[in-house]
Amino acid sequence: MALYTESERRDRITRIHGFEPAPSVREKSMALLLQEMDSAGVTVGVVIGRHSGRYGTISNEDVAGIVKAHPNRFVGAASIDPTNRKTASEQILNAIKTGFRAINIEPGSYPLPMMVDDRRLYPVYAQCEDAGLPVIIMAGGSAGPDLGYTEPVHLDRVAADFPELKIVASHGGWPWVHQILHIAFRRPNIYLSPDQYLANMAGMDDYVRAADGFLADRFLYASSYPFTPAHDYAAWFKKLPIKPESMEKILFRNTAKLLRIELEKA
Amino acid sequence: MALYTESERRDRITRIHGFEPAPSVREKSMALLLQEMDSAGVTVGVVIGRHSGRYGTISNEDVAGIVKAHPNRFVGAASIDPTNRKTASEQILNAIKTGFRAINIEPGSYPLPMMVDDRRLYPVYAQCEDAGLPVIIMAGGSAGPDLGYTEPVHLDRVAADFPELKIVASHGGWPWVHQILHIAFRRPNIYLSPDQYLANMAGMDDYVRAADGFLADRFLYASSYPFTPAHDYAAWFKKLPIKPESMEKILFRNTAKLLRIELEKA
Amino acid sequence: MALYTESERRDRITRIHGFEPAPSVREKSMALLLQEMDSAGVTVGVVIGRHSGRYGTISNEDVAGIVKAHPNRFVGAASIDPTNRKTASEQILNAIKTGFRAINIEPGSYPLPMMVDDRRLYPVYAQCEDAGLPVIIMAGGSAGPDLGYTEPVHLDRVAADFPELKIVASHGGWPWVHQILHIAFRRPNIYLSPDQYLANMAGMDDYVRAADGFLADRFLYASSYPFTPAHDYAAWFKKLPIKPESMEKILFRNTAKLLRIELEKA
Repeated sequence: MALYTESERRDRITRIHGFEPAPSVREKSMALLLQEMDSAGVTVGVVIGRHSGRYGTISNEDVAGIVKAHPNRFVGAASIDPTNRKTASEQILNAIKTGFRAINIEPGSYPLPMMVDDRRLYPVYAQCEDAGLPVIIMAGGSAGPDLGYTEPVHLDRVAADFPELKIVASHGGWPWVHQILHIAFRRPNIYLSPDQYLANMAGMDDYVRAADGFLADRFLYASSYPFTPAHDYAAWFKKLPIKPESMEKILFRNTAKLLRIELEKA
Repeated sequence: MALYTESERRDRITRIHGFEPAPSVREKSMALLLQEMDSAGVTVGVVIGRHSGRYGTISNEDVAGIVKAHPNRFVGAASIDPTNRKTASEQILNAIKTGFRAINIEPGSYPLPMMVDDRRLYPVYAQCEDAGLPVIIMAGGSAGPDLGYTEPVHLDRVAADFPELKIVASHGGWPWVHQILHIAFRRPNIYLSPDQYLANMAGMDDYVRAADGFLADRFLYASSYPFTPAHDYAAWFKKLPIKPESMEKILFRNTAKLLRIELEKA
Repeated sequence: MALYTESERRDRITRIHGFEPAPSVREKSMALLLQEMDSAGVTVGVVIGRHSGRYGTISNEDVAGIVKAHPNRFVGAASIDPTNRKTASEQILNAIKTGFRAINIEPGSYPLPMMVDDRRLYPVYAQCEDAGLPVIIMAGGSAGPDLGYTEPVHLDRVAADFPELKIVASHGGWPWVHQILHIAFRRPNIYLSPDQYLANMAGMDDYVRAADGFLADRFLYASSYPFTPAHDYAAWFKKLPIKPESMEKILFRNTAKLLRIELEKA
């Protein structure tokens, strides 16, 4: 997977965000990652399947394997292949059966890149909406071949057309900071997770103001590990000017509620 | 009208902006509104006709009735139906005859939503430009079915194609804060009124900096009542870091000059 | 050229940025400009050829004449006519022979305006990439007839399609501040020069944060003279909250390296 094979690019990005690569990343060590999660206070991580051209593939089977090996530390999100409607539908049914908590959709980075509101994704959205299964949509960052793939109007249309579908905008719609905050303001089914793009990037003050304001119930903490280190990013995040009651929601409660994770914590 | 029938949505939005719904809104009371205007220092309010699908209709007759009942407290802006060129032209002539001070145009929320630079609106813009009648264009917020309807290039084209037409961008082009400030920088016929979208929303610092700088003569105070309360919003606005001479223009002089309102005040 | 014939517009813009027009601009005096450069600490200026409809033309011959008259104070960037592929190719060859350090491309302001990724520009980009010649692309400000011409996706595609081509985004992609910072984050061949649009304009804090962070090696000082005064703008710029080592790169080293200018300074 590109995140590990292209280590130079990955570490360059980590440093742009103001961090040093985590030991667990350098050594590709699950044991170290679990330690870093412990020291970061991350009780449960979300492992995400991926069906991508540019960024490589992580099969649902691999994700399920990690979750099975560490059932108290990870939950999974399954990927689908949107170019075959029937396969995708079966993948969703399987994901539900296997206990996946969400479907991960990365339109711009599919082998055949598509927009977030591509017609071929509409049956997927419909099925997830009907099943009450949240979707995570990569709707920011370097999500596609060019900036056109993150233009936020596409996400806005999906949120409008499937009002009961809970949608996590991963990478937080960055760099369309003002626009994604409008969409989140308008559409109550949008959840925002700027993850790595919060850290020292353009517009971060507006994200933080929303996180501590109208988005406190729909802002989700995420580190984009391995792009930022689990421990150091969490330590940095906890110092942001966000009220404790909002912080508690953002770090734990919002994701727990959305992905049906039992919180022993707090 | 949706602003009153969908009171839950409206009040949710009021609170996102950091305010509590005004008593006059809860009780739908003109007497209370006039009191709130008094205590806010709002001498004259602008009542706006609306011809909308999603958001309901307020006829020019109703607006004229309010203005007639309270001639010292309100001036009116008339709406038009852009789908019939001849009707629209007559509506403009009638508006002038009746004493309306501007034409209100809400392209994205017409029963058949259109872009700000839709060809069917060009005769309307031409007639208003020739008559010296300002237009108010809803060019921000949830102006249309999706974010595409507020993409600012459409407004920019209208401003360029009708350089003598005075255009108020209501909702301030939000969330396209940087882009609308470029347009206002480039086009001297653009007036900006971010109204409710100024209050605690993404990009507000940039609006305020422009209001106290190059836009001091073209920034217009508005509260988007009933979305924000007349009194509390005005009180909040007056505390923004804007020089007194700019504030005086923004609160009174700019709108008075644009809409030909006589100011007894100051 | 429009910059001098439309002096009222030019001076209005200078004042919006917070400056007074320089004496050298008012008197169109090269002697005064050299004095202003001296007092600003500007050792070498970049003179830019222009082939524009709206903004007038500055021939490569005129630019070469200025450089020849003041070889230690100026280097030149040549313009091309993109509507004739063979002419453009010869202009590039001539530019190299004459000692020009870059090709200046202003797609939106050509007599026939075009997008930055117009197919007719692709042979130009290819030739410059192969020759190792940087291009300066006017990708911000009032670059074209309307805001559509600065939509940053077009620049992003060029940066992706010519990964070895060094591209200076003049006017810094403004007003698309967040978006251009994403592009610069993603594409290592993008250099950013917000020039006049840094000065008191929307989004300037995000530019400055990037200049002192991940863009320290690819942020280029420029004054957009005559739109801002050489001395006063430099004095203002040097007070920005940017670390001395980043400032030194931005003021001198980055441009020197990119345009092969020998620095006696430092």
